[in-house]
Amino acid sequence: MQKQIEYEQAIKTKYPEQVVIAVAKDKAGRANPITLGWTMLVSGKPPMMAIAVAKTHYSIETIRHSKCFTIGYPSSDMADAALFFGSKSGRNTDKFAEFDCKTESAKAIDSVLLADAVANFECTLRTETEAGDHIIFVGEVICSHTNTEPKKRLYTTAPGHKLGPAS
Amino acid sequence: MQKQIEYEQAIKTKYPEQVVIAVAKDKAGRANPITLGWTMLVSGKPPMMAIAVAKTHYSIETIRHSKCFTIGYPSSDMADAALFFGSKSGRNTDKFAEFDCKTESAKAIDSVLLADAVANFECTLRTETEAGDHIIFVGEVICSHTNTEPKKRLYTTAPGHKLGPAS
Repeated sequence: MQKQIEYEQAIKTKYPEQVVIAVAKDKAGRANPITLGWTMLVSGKPPMMAIAVAKTHYSIETIRHSKCFTIGYPSSDMADAALFFGSKSGRNTDKFAEFDCKTESAKAIDSVLLADAVANFECTLRTETEAGDHIIFVGEVICSHTNTEPKKRLYTTAPGHKLGPAS
Repeated sequence: MQKQIEYEQAIKTKYPEQVVIAVAKDKAGRANPITLGWTMLVSGKPPMMAIAVAKTHYSIETIRHSKCFTIGYPSSDMADAALFFGSKSGRNTDKFAEFDCKTESAKAIDSVLLADAVANFECTLRTETEAGDHIIFVGEVICSHTNTEPKKRLYTTAPGHKLGPAS
């Protein structure tokens, strides 16, 4: 049976929620990673993925500038990197310089892959749509990669940025 | 270390993937549920959610007609309902008539809630955006509900529509 309650309470039932790390280069050519929970697949043919980024975030500028981004699925042992990339701003922090997280060059776009991630998807920007306090960016996946070792994805498992494997 | 592979293989690393059931009424006033994995939150203030629906699906018509929809988080014991609602078309099936799934009236929009779900969110349609073979619908959440009993969400845990709790 359902009981009406405030949205802020109801949305606490969403966990576990997937975590991705999106990376786009800024005007200075610096790769800027951001940790996001708000992402989904949006097309099968061609493969496309969407991310929702808060309007205030530096990543808005980097994605608009480079018109491409990678989406990495961090592995369950990358919680510290995900927390760091999600809590600092690329406006005043070179995140990859300040946090030790191995990267590799992307193959089809000018961005980087997360070397230890479960998978990485290289996307070219297709559309952006305003949605409340966020911008939805849709990218077409033009190149895909997985880890040579089997890894589990990282999830937010409970409120308060509790991160870990889903199972 | 990353290895480039085909998208179809790489995307198999996405699991567990959340499952929601979206419901919108058609022109005949019939509530039509569809099971979706492609959904995300897109705004905090106001709260907004997005779903991606295949262009060929009947739900496109129902959402465009009623300009509102509910998003339910099915509980982990609703796998059979999720499979049924995700495999039949509302064009030729009255899904709620053919599968025993308790519903309640929505409070703020003309749709229904899933009585046994973890939570239900009533949304008014804000925007729609084309993305490849899908349409992204964004709805503003104007009324929220949770189950009076504690429940776990349902996830697709592996390819081939394997459904269950994430942990």
